[in-house]
Amino acid sequence: MSDQDLRIGLIGAGKMGADHAVRIHERISGARLVAVGDPDVDRARQVADGAAARAEHDPFAVIDASDVDALVIASPGVVHEPLLLAAIERGVPVLCEKPLTPDSKSSLRVVEAEEARGKHLVQVGFMRRFDPEYVELKRMLDAGDLGRALLLHCVHRNASTPPGFTSQMMIFDSVVHEFDTARWLLDQEIAAVSVRWPRSSAAAPEGLIDPQVVTVETTGGVLVDVEIFVNCGFGYQVRCEAVGEHGTALVGADSGPVVHHGGRWGGNVTADFRDRFGTAFDQEFQRWAGAARQGGVDPAAAGAWDGYAAAAACEAGVLAQTTGARTEVELADRPGFYA
Amino acid sequence: MSDQDLRIGLIGAGKMGADHAVRIHERISGARLVAVGDPDVDRARQVADGAAARAEHDPFAVIDASDVDALVIASPGVVHEPLLLAAIERGVPVLCEKPLTPDSKSSLRVVEAEEARGKHLVQVGFMRRFDPEYVELKRMLDAGDLGRALLLHCVHRNASTPPGFTSQMMIFDSVVHEFDTARWLLDQEIAAVSVRWPRSSAAAPEGLIDPQVVTVETTGGVLVDVEIFVNCGFGYQVRCEAVGEHGTALVGADSGPVVHHGGRWGGNVTADFRDRFGTAFDQEFQRWAGAARQGGVDPAAAGAWDGYAAAAACEAGVLAQTTGARTEVELADRPGFYA
Amino acid sequence: MSDQDLRIGLIGAGKMGADHAVRIHERISGARLVAVGDPDVDRARQVADGAAARAEHDPFAVIDASDVDALVIASPGVVHEPLLLAAIERGVPVLCEKPLTPDSKSSLRVVEAEEARGKHLVQVGFMRRFDPEYVELKRMLDAGDLGRALLLHCVHRNASTPPGFTSQMMIFDSVVHEFDTARWLLDQEIAAVSVRWPRSSAAAPEGLIDPQVVTVETTGGVLVDVEIFVNCGFGYQVRCEAVGEHGTALVGADSGPVVHHGGRWGGNVTADFRDRFGTAFDQEFQRWAGAARQGGVDPAAAGAWDGYAAAAACEAGVLAQTTGARTEVELADRPGFYA
Amino acid sequence: MSDQDLRIGLIGAGKMGADHAVRIHERISGARLVAVGDPDVDRARQVADGAAARAEHDPFAVIDASDVDALVIASPGVVHEPLLLAAIERGVPVLCEKPLTPDSKSSLRVVEAEEARGKHLVQVGFMRRFDPEYVELKRMLDAGDLGRALLLHCVHRNASTPPGFTSQMMIFDSVVHEFDTARWLLDQEIAAVSVRWPRSSAAAPEGLIDPQVVTVETTGGVLVDVEIFVNCGFGYQVRCEAVGEHGTALVGADSGPVVHHGGRWGGNVTADFRDRFGTAFDQEFQRWAGAARQGGVDPAAAGAWDGYAAAAACEAGVLAQTTGARTEVELADRPGFYA
Repeated sequence: MSDQDLRIGLIGAGKMGADHAVRIHERISGARLVAVGDPDVDRARQVADGAAARAEHDPFAVIDASDVDALVIASPGVVHEPLLLAAIERGVPVLCEKPLTPDSKSSLRVVEAEEARGKHLVQVGFMRRFDPEYVELKRMLDAGDLGRALLLHCVHRNASTPPGFTSQMMIFDSVVHEFDTARWLLDQEIAAVSVRWPRSSAAAPEGLIDPQVVTVETTGGVLVDVEIFVNCGFGYQVRCEAVGEHGTALVGADSGPVVHHGGRWGGNVTADFRDRFGTAFDQEFQRWAGAARQGGVDPAAAGAWDGYAAAAACEAGVLAQTTGARTEVELADRPGFYA
Repeated sequence: MSDQDLRIGLIGAGKMGADHAVRIHERISGARLVAVGDPDVDRARQVADGAAARAEHDPFAVIDASDVDALVIASPGVVHEPLLLAAIERGVPVLCEKPLTPDSKSSLRVVEAEEARGKHLVQVGFMRRFDPEYVELKRMLDAGDLGRALLLHCVHRNASTPPGFTSQMMIFDSVVHEFDTARWLLDQEIAAVSVRWPRSSAAAPEGLIDPQVVTVETTGGVLVDVEIFVNCGFGYQVRCEAVGEHGTALVGADSGPVVHHGGRWGGNVTADFRDRFGTAFDQEFQRWAGAARQGGVDPAAAGAWDGYAAAAACEAGVLAQTTGARTEVELADRPGFYA
Repeated sequence: MSDQDLRIGLIGAGKMGADHAVRIHERISGARLVAVGDPDVDRARQVADGAAARAEHDPFAVIDASDVDALVIASPGVVHEPLLLAAIERGVPVLCEKPLTPDSKSSLRVVEAEEARGKHLVQVGFMRRFDPEYVELKRMLDAGDLGRALLLHCVHRNASTPPGFTSQMMIFDSVVHEFDTARWLLDQEIAAVSVRWPRSSAAAPEGLIDPQVVTVETTGGVLVDVEIFVNCGFGYQVRCEAVGEHGTALVGADSGPVVHHGGRWGGNVTADFRDRFGTAFDQEFQRWAGAARQGGVDPAAAGAWDGYAAAAACEAGVLAQTTGARTEVELADRPGFYA
Repeated sequence: MSDQDLRIGLIGAGKMGADHAVRIHERISGARLVAVGDPDVDRARQVADGAAARAEHDPFAVIDASDVDALVIASPGVVHEPLLLAAIERGVPVLCEKPLTPDSKSSLRVVEAEEARGKHLVQVGFMRRFDPEYVELKRMLDAGDLGRALLLHCVHRNASTPPGFTSQMMIFDSVVHEFDTARWLLDQEIAAVSVRWPRSSAAAPEGLIDPQVVTVETTGGVLVDVEIFVNCGFGYQVRCEAVGEHGTALVGADSGPVVHHGGRWGGNVTADFRDRFGTAFDQEFQRWAGAARQGGVDPAAAGAWDGYAAAAACEAGVLAQTTGARTEVELADRPGFYA
């Protein structure tokens, strides 16, 4: 790395943004937060104060600031597109929390803008790519330790949902991680998506279909099933079992201290994604900061094309949810720029 | 139990029959083998000799023998129907290895014959109902420990298949266990079956689609997915994870001595179904022998109706396999006799 | 086996005796209970009735009965010696619950009597030798899978103790199992015993030193440590980790269905020794019954010499407990009869 | 934190020093390496170059440099004392890899110097205090979740030893971690140490007694046993099971992806301490850097007194190793400064 710290502007001072501000300020080497932008400027100020940064009402003021070397976008997905386009235009590296944008059309515009700019600047926050177990699973699959991959069995559970969480959000906010995981682990695109569900849990809020089972077919003939259950009650759990021709590998098995007490053995379930993936987030940010100081992005991370492909899979998923039918994913041709 | 040993006639002296002969002779209390019938009388004699029983060429000679109190049928499924009808007519309790019969029509004839006889005589060898872990899972579900059941995730893997094993047999011989397990655990019928598959493993013999994923919908709105992979290469593995409204429970986790050696930790995978379910078979036979000495069947076991329902689900499964479409299971009305 | 059932006389109708009566009656092939002897004849009758056997007030009446082919002794250890000597004199095979006798002098008299009789008739109920995991561990050690054994780490925990349980009984009733396990797994004698302890648990009854740590040195230079904790509160747990030159193996890891519920993952701890070792007891009895029908004992089981050696180790253990000093075990020369 | 980066001088450019240089340069927020001192100045330069720092031949030049705000000492233990005294005199915070010094007398001199200086400046690198599982175990013990602690069972295994590794080093280099762990987890001092061992492994180099079992008594009456096995062959393994009055908790259980392959289930053993405790080191350094920027030390970390107490326990351990006798630890009175 160069001697100079990477000066980061953060857009979005919600829960995720606040978490990242602490991360950058307290745990990331060679980087510091200089500005926090949020229309709710009080919220921005609160986050900024903890990190000795300044607060801005206008996110674009952060993007345009001459002392901002790189951007973290943690605002709601619906406002990502103009922020990303502005950042690409200015040529600053961006770590954008998923989703890239909420739909594939706008995602494709980001892809095209980046391609036109001719420089990889956009990274999407699919943090599982930095979880040590997932990294090891990818290594095994790439090395052929299990033979060719045939199936992935995925489980994605949350203890409960905030008010207003919809069945569509189960795809866009939750299963989007499995879409990216499958693409990344297998080096294949998603070809089609189907969605089925049992009767809903009594713990699911009115109107929410929960749990659901999403089935994914990849271009390489792998079948992926995903249980998404966002009101499971007992904690946050993310598991993936890869089934290959000669063996299987499971990531996300229970871990932590093993207690014997009161007639039971076992341990604690992780409470939420920060508890489960905190180290992965740190890794992701540290590697991104290192790459951004060189003006680029981390090649191990998800880029704009990955964000676009995930958005396209999500759209197919929501359509499949609505129609009950197997739905093919339509992808633009992959530009050589993203080969 | 009464003072008198239960005198058992065994029909079918193949691998399964031979295994059961040893079981009855060496491990089951209050029962002894008196006759073994198999068209291949040499094979029958070999099995009979080990258990101090006599060999018969004609299976019906075993059914009709005056010193036979109860029957175990371990011959191929295609010959079950006439054997079962003869046993029902004679009024002797029968423990019939699965399948009851190979198709639902003939199974229904057995059901009707038993109902006409007015006495429960037929038990089907779904041994998982006697596996201690499955029994505990059923107890939890019945007690509502996990809330209402919503999903079952099942995995059923064999190291490899014998010559001649077909994709249809993956349903009839293998997934039939999951059909029965789901019906029993949930106290629900199977409403519909779908089958999908990834590209087949290079280890699968020519013509075999392996692995496959079977999805089951139950009359109570539970969704069950079953990975059936009969050439997985590494051993025999049967797992079932029940997902309820408030929690999950998994049976079939890895067990046995945990070894650290050569940079690895872990243990042995069970080699085959005898290794995995040996204790369950013993339990099944011991309880059946106890019930048969009273002239009846074990109420905890699968009966003729269960055999019929499993056959109907298998037919739907094979149809779904062929057509690629979700296929509904058509069941006769359940007679009060089987309530 | 011969055609004739083994006719078993049971002496001792306490908890253990009652358990064995059910075992013989309901789960053991080729054997039946004919007589139950206990000075408390009501208790004897209760146990006998359930198994269609007769009750006797005088245990020697059971030993002398002409219709008794073999004996199970489940009475208190203090009365074992005369019963065993009478059985040896009559030449009937005996399965004697541990301890063989409560002290090494009387145990040696049993050894000498059996040797004088010139026939192996006595088997001691160290059931762990029939637990599938221990059997596999023994196989690994014998095969050298882990290299030469160096250490054994043992844990032996009970939820709580009945009234009157003493520190000495922790050695004689509990650690005696580890003494036999170590001798059997290693094919070595116990050379010396030391005992240490931390402050006692507040849950330990007045006067009981609980937990304790017993250290054993074997004649082959293996060091064995045993945590004995009889009021651990949470269940029954028996674990043994063998450390060899190239690897380790652990038996007794937690098993059973794995549940996720209420923020926790895990399962149930076995409640007591019947829950943990039920299958081992069944195996032990079945194999013993088979051998006894041939007039002998099971070579895989513990014999009189093993009972004697365990008693000698227990005496050293209690002495070590009292003096706080390392105490050597004094063994008679092993007769060729027990080679 | 203040706006200014903490400027760190590193003394010792061996394996550990090089590892910490990378850590500071690439993963620690708010800190940077400015100087690396090692008598082997080529080695120093190599390490310094990777972190854009300067190399020094004379460690004291690093301590005295005006641009060094804090020190990391990773040189051999025998040279720690003068370095620490100089740092204390200059008033700069020091993170000193264990041991504080190689004997209790010199450690006490460091303690006294720090006390005389009147400011907590010295932190000792017992990184387990920052391992998430150990932190959770400490929380449980402090909260009384398991009742009062009674026993600790510890296992500490390395795949193999470098040339020249001695039996004494097994205490000073390895078990010293368990001494600190026990003191920290229990908030008690070590009262006495005993050492025993089985026959040595054939894999142990000539002259090395390996494995050994160290038994520790604490001032609060807890008994701690430690298996130290430094040529176990299969990897690096550190486990600790705390046994309390109402329950037990184990840290260091096997983790990582679970693979089924070739008839086996399981995963990889961690290869070395960096693999096992990398995250703990990062945490330790990050927290220390934060505290050092305020001019102090991390209160959660081990201080000079802890380093002294560990050295005293090591001395007792080595004496116990030599004499074969239980050896009491003699500690100076704990000054109020370290209360």
